[in-house]
Amino acid sequence: MTDLSPIADQLTAQAIELPSWAFGNSGTRFKVYGTPGTPRDPFEKIADAAQVHRFTALAPTVALHIPWDKVEDYTVLRRHAEDHGVALGTVNSNTFQDDDYKFGALTHEDAAVRRKAIDHHLECIDIMHATGSRDLKIWLAEGSNYPGQADLRGRQDRLHESLSEIYARLGDEQRLVLEYKFFEPAFYHTDVPDWGTSYAQVSALGDQAMVCLDTGHHAPGTNIEFIVMQLLRLGKLGSFDFNSRFYADDDLIVGAADPFQLFRILFEVVRGGGLNNPDVAFMLDQCHNVEEKIPGQIRSVLNVQEMTARALLVDREALSAAQQSGDVLGAHAIFNDAFYTDVRPALADWRESRGLPRDPFAAYAASGYQQRIAEERIGGTQAGWGA
Amino acid sequence: MTDLSPIADQLTAQAIELPSWAFGNSGTRFKVYGTPGTPRDPFEKIADAAQVHRFTALAPTVALHIPWDKVEDYTVLRRHAEDHGVALGTVNSNTFQDDDYKFGALTHEDAAVRRKAIDHHLECIDIMHATGSRDLKIWLAEGSNYPGQADLRGRQDRLHESLSEIYARLGDEQRLVLEYKFFEPAFYHTDVPDWGTSYAQVSALGDQAMVCLDTGHHAPGTNIEFIVMQLLRLGKLGSFDFNSRFYADDDLIVGAADPFQLFRILFEVVRGGGLNNPDVAFMLDQCHNVEEKIPGQIRSVLNVQEMTARALLVDREALSAAQQSGDVLGAHAIFNDAFYTDVRPALADWRESRGLPRDPFAAYAASGYQQRIAEERIGGTQAGWGA
Amino acid sequence: MTDLSPIADQLTAQAIELPSWAFGNSGTRFKVYGTPGTPRDPFEKIADAAQVHRFTALAPTVALHIPWDKVEDYTVLRRHAEDHGVALGTVNSNTFQDDDYKFGALTHEDAAVRRKAIDHHLECIDIMHATGSRDLKIWLAEGSNYPGQADLRGRQDRLHESLSEIYARLGDEQRLVLEYKFFEPAFYHTDVPDWGTSYAQVSALGDQAMVCLDTGHHAPGTNIEFIVMQLLRLGKLGSFDFNSRFYADDDLIVGAADPFQLFRILFEVVRGGGLNNPDVAFMLDQCHNVEEKIPGQIRSVLNVQEMTARALLVDREALSAAQQSGDVLGAHAIFNDAFYTDVRPALADWRESRGLPRDPFAAYAASGYQQRIAEERIGGTQAGWGA
Amino acid sequence: MTDLSPIADQLTAQAIELPSWAFGNSGTRFKVYGTPGTPRDPFEKIADAAQVHRFTALAPTVALHIPWDKVEDYTVLRRHAEDHGVALGTVNSNTFQDDDYKFGALTHEDAAVRRKAIDHHLECIDIMHATGSRDLKIWLAEGSNYPGQADLRGRQDRLHESLSEIYARLGDEQRLVLEYKFFEPAFYHTDVPDWGTSYAQVSALGDQAMVCLDTGHHAPGTNIEFIVMQLLRLGKLGSFDFNSRFYADDDLIVGAADPFQLFRILFEVVRGGGLNNPDVAFMLDQCHNVEEKIPGQIRSVLNVQEMTARALLVDREALSAAQQSGDVLGAHAIFNDAFYTDVRPALADWRESRGLPRDPFAAYAASGYQQRIAEERIGGTQAGWGA
Repeated sequence: MTDLSPIADQLTAQAIELPSWAFGNSGTRFKVYGTPGTPRDPFEKIADAAQVHRFTALAPTVALHIPWDKVEDYTVLRRHAEDHGVALGTVNSNTFQDDDYKFGALTHEDAAVRRKAIDHHLECIDIMHATGSRDLKIWLAEGSNYPGQADLRGRQDRLHESLSEIYARLGDEQRLVLEYKFFEPAFYHTDVPDWGTSYAQVSALGDQAMVCLDTGHHAPGTNIEFIVMQLLRLGKLGSFDFNSRFYADDDLIVGAADPFQLFRILFEVVRGGGLNNPDVAFMLDQCHNVEEKIPGQIRSVLNVQEMTARALLVDREALSAAQQSGDVLGAHAIFNDAFYTDVRPALADWRESRGLPRDPFAAYAASGYQQRIAEERIGGTQAGWGA
Repeated sequence: MTDLSPIADQLTAQAIELPSWAFGNSGTRFKVYGTPGTPRDPFEKIADAAQVHRFTALAPTVALHIPWDKVEDYTVLRRHAEDHGVALGTVNSNTFQDDDYKFGALTHEDAAVRRKAIDHHLECIDIMHATGSRDLKIWLAEGSNYPGQADLRGRQDRLHESLSEIYARLGDEQRLVLEYKFFEPAFYHTDVPDWGTSYAQVSALGDQAMVCLDTGHHAPGTNIEFIVMQLLRLGKLGSFDFNSRFYADDDLIVGAADPFQLFRILFEVVRGGGLNNPDVAFMLDQCHNVEEKIPGQIRSVLNVQEMTARALLVDREALSAAQQSGDVLGAHAIFNDAFYTDVRPALADWRESRGLPRDPFAAYAASGYQQRIAEERIGGTQAGWGA
Repeated sequence: MTDLSPIADQLTAQAIELPSWAFGNSGTRFKVYGTPGTPRDPFEKIADAAQVHRFTALAPTVALHIPWDKVEDYTVLRRHAEDHGVALGTVNSNTFQDDDYKFGALTHEDAAVRRKAIDHHLECIDIMHATGSRDLKIWLAEGSNYPGQADLRGRQDRLHESLSEIYARLGDEQRLVLEYKFFEPAFYHTDVPDWGTSYAQVSALGDQAMVCLDTGHHAPGTNIEFIVMQLLRLGKLGSFDFNSRFYADDDLIVGAADPFQLFRILFEVVRGGGLNNPDVAFMLDQCHNVEEKIPGQIRSVLNVQEMTARALLVDREALSAAQQSGDVLGAHAIFNDAFYTDVRPALADWRESRGLPRDPFAAYAASGYQQRIAEERIGGTQAGWGA
Repeated sequence: MTDLSPIADQLTAQAIELPSWAFGNSGTRFKVYGTPGTPRDPFEKIADAAQVHRFTALAPTVALHIPWDKVEDYTVLRRHAEDHGVALGTVNSNTFQDDDYKFGALTHEDAAVRRKAIDHHLECIDIMHATGSRDLKIWLAEGSNYPGQADLRGRQDRLHESLSEIYARLGDEQRLVLEYKFFEPAFYHTDVPDWGTSYAQVSALGDQAMVCLDTGHHAPGTNIEFIVMQLLRLGKLGSFDFNSRFYADDDLIVGAADPFQLFRILFEVVRGGGLNNPDVAFMLDQCHNVEEKIPGQIRSVLNVQEMTARALLVDREALSAAQQSGDVLGAHAIFNDAFYTDVRPALADWRESRGLPRDPFAAYAASGYQQRIAEERIGGTQAGWGA
């Protein structure tokens, strides 16, 4: 049995934010499948998210998406969350579902559209004050589909201007995190396609602006852990959006497609001082198109936890010695020894010792929660990712 | 001015089938933008498609998608098309939008679901008899999202069984064309992901089964013209779905992303005897998410025509001599000389000589059609791609 | 401790062929680094390969590369191998290092060059009779660098003719296996770029011709286990060339880049009846540019063994039940449960029980072999991969 | 005939630096083919490069690679160049062909190896003073092949230290340009893999440090013109290494693989003020593995010139109006109108008007230079790229 005691404090401190939209229906451009019990409003989403925390103690906060999670009174929502044992987290803006934004939002040629998009972000900041959220996360769906359609440079300059105005509104304890994405929904150019662009833009804003790294938003073959290392080194890694992919931005369960990559990423997080560091938020951003949603989120946070444990188990002293002596196979073996260690039994013990179920899936299934929501949540419109 | 007279017969013979769904709204999983004048039923789609043919003489047939284009009486639809100067073409089946198909259709573990999916195809064949269509095109959205989720082998075997039953129902003059697609909507495995799989499956059926090559359905870096060459050589290239892409299956206007690739593809078509060969159907399969739809289709058929003209202009005798002598730069130059030739003025003349407008875009704009449909098509539900 | 007894017979039967060239120096177009003790002739390569078998009992045969491993008398080489406890295996031809082959070999426009290339293969078959080898493996480096440079179709037809002549010379117990490769050394087109082309070509030859799947020879994102499944289903998977890659054809140690992918591949081998099936040869084809060579090969065969054990441990009955019921997360979990199982301690026991060292690396290091060859192999020209 | 007079000044000002190594033999890890007449020393390389300039007036300078182009007395080399009508340009360092650099140079764990690598760069700066070169171009082949092999973060920090020392030695008029490369020769991680890393590193150095963008060094699907736009916007685009690719870093003739991409890149250069801007050096960095070298370079500079002319012909006022009005197809058409314009006849006229040959290939062939060098350059060792 693996001895987790040297890393127990770090495991206990770990917190992964859940996205409210993971509990709604999601799909592809071809079809979105619905499921019984899908939440119909932000309150039900938070209730579902709280189940993940209840069985894992890993997910104490829930990220909101505005306007999907708009409510009359955020104090009520905040209290609702607290009543369920969780807190409200990052606020995500949305400038990709209004007809005005067909050709851009913060980058639009038309100042009136930019004004509207900026105002939306200012509203988000107001909401953050009500919810007690620290981070405003901005993902830009903006770009173009055809060469010549857009003025790449003008858009980049306007992006800077728009972000500057939003940044100026942040409270002292608040942050702006700017996500980048290789492509989609735009198919020729995207206004923030890579970490370099996000880094250049946030660096021009100031210390409260950081980069958000979504693990699914890179070109094929990209060494993501290298980027993690670099952003930590530059002091600009603000948050992770965890998920996994085989092809494009598949938004699969984190660690499902390439567990070894997740291990390498988490090793660089540990190496660079990013673990349980308040500057580096861990979040999920993924969909459950065909699998059950609450168990899907449980699977996700456990995947992150298990891989974090493995990353913490790397014998870094021995690794460093092997690296310094040019022992390629030796260093690789020390690194992989941690990856191939089966930490699951020890983590079950660790859960048990904290009053948590050894098997969170079985415990969730036995709880009857799924049946209850399937029965109770009849009528109304099921919430959807992307809607 | 380029002399097109040696290739005029081939230009005149060229026909490119339009997809009815290109005239409906389309988009991404994030958002579908609507436009004024979007058709609300198959009749309006065909009327729009006929405009493309009217101004280019390149698009005499329209492909249908069942059930999107279901009507009470296909004889009426057929006559409607003829009244507009076009004919009905390929029938496309759809097994990806019914809840039963969440985990597969022709490959499903459950025989009842397979039965339903097979029956849908038999119905499509019935419709083909009514519409006078020759080709049944099958694109399978089937696959899985997570390793272990599905039994890859069992699905492949069941696919063969299902296709066999459909194939057996074909009339003597009918064909089954099987499309392949690298990924999406499934993100881990797709049941017909590559030309090799489609080729193996259709070869097991018989001479009336062929491969459909969609130019957007390949892995990054794939040499598509090589596949065109190979399928023509093997006698199994049944049809093209033309479009273009920068990243995934972007479904952009054919030739918009990499015109040189389109040139190379059309050169192999010419080289392999696939041009104006009834065995090799030319079709578009693309979306117009942000651009106007009818002009978008006009742009597309002109792109195919212009690149076909360039491919026909390659001095194949000189090319062959250069190839045989190992003259790398000489052969490349002869090949590229055709690509860099500006055929547009000569094609405008050619159009004029046939009573067509020199500038189809200007003619379409001047026709007032767009304004008319925007005014007339009020109310009802706009047709959508993927809906 | 994992119980390996239910799979012990299969582990005992496993055999992985080593490539003689893995023991020579290799590198990139930029630089090849030499190492002390590198073999200078085929005899020394075989002696090195025998070390891998000595400490793992997994590598009873050694593949040859002609002309790199040409010797006066193959009976002597064969006996040399037997004296070292191994046998000679697959013969690999080479048509990419002679000036005549600059523009092709089996596909060349010039019949005289084709003749030479065909004769080389006939000579390889003669050698196979002398060495007792069953398989002739053909990898074609042929292709072109510039569009227009080559006649893709003509080359494909000539390839068929050349292969037919080679195939006709095979003895009744011999096989031809045709490898495919996405790109490199040619950068525009490759004459056998994908499994579909290899499958079409070998199917046209006959039952003794099979496909060789090199795990590093695919486009980014390709689902390789799907191809494994398909070729097994079609009865045409002749052999594996195992290695791994992050980008192009990196030729890294098998399993080093994406261990989960190797697991999925081996699961499909098991699922499709390809394990310990004489029709499906397991071979390594990789380089050790910066790491030690003999330990690099030990690492490789152990990686295959460990992942084979995991693949065999999948609870296929439970998996099948979960798949049939559409339990996505359940099926994925059953599949992954085997992947995350740490089989290493049990495999160490298994080795011990067979008189093998628990730790083959430590045993090799303790044997003093490396020091001995570094001291003895002074002078002469070190063997090189690609030279 | 296209009217080039509005852009004639810009065409006349255009200058593209040639790499001395393009005239030596190059190839892949599998084979390097030699050709008659290949230069045997830097003097012969420069003589060959001067031929390209003689027939095109586009290539007035030649980049050197140290130590490949080391000579006793750089004043003599400089005069030799001037005698041939060209000047010496950028100096490229080389830290990838010495055994000491197996595990890194500027990033090596061992201070002694770093010292050696830094000293090599200081020597390059000394040479630059002698040759009159402005730019020191640094491409780092450094990285690792296996996860765990190297300490990514430590290497990045050491890279900064090493570069700082080199930077400090630059003369006031000199610059350091740092190239990035996605992968190869390292296969797991590369120390400067992307523009973001190069940008972060050079920004930390100072105003005389800039990014070098090699058009072949990106992940599949990367929008390179976006990076061009961004680096120009940030004031950090120091130079281009032009070439083209289908797959990896193929180093093919610029514009040969995707001419439309080259057009888009050059449009952004024009748009961002990078054309004929002394801050942005145009260089070639490509190989001629199978084609003739001097004609290959002539082809390359003409490709850049032709595409520059097209980029300059874009009707930017009309484009801007279409972009502002959201006219997707209109803007795309204006953009493409320039791309599809056949500028070759007008450029032939332009050449003639400047006393240059209409057809530089024919003129070169007629000059007898190739035959002369093939006859004269017998004996000695042919220069090689990568050797």
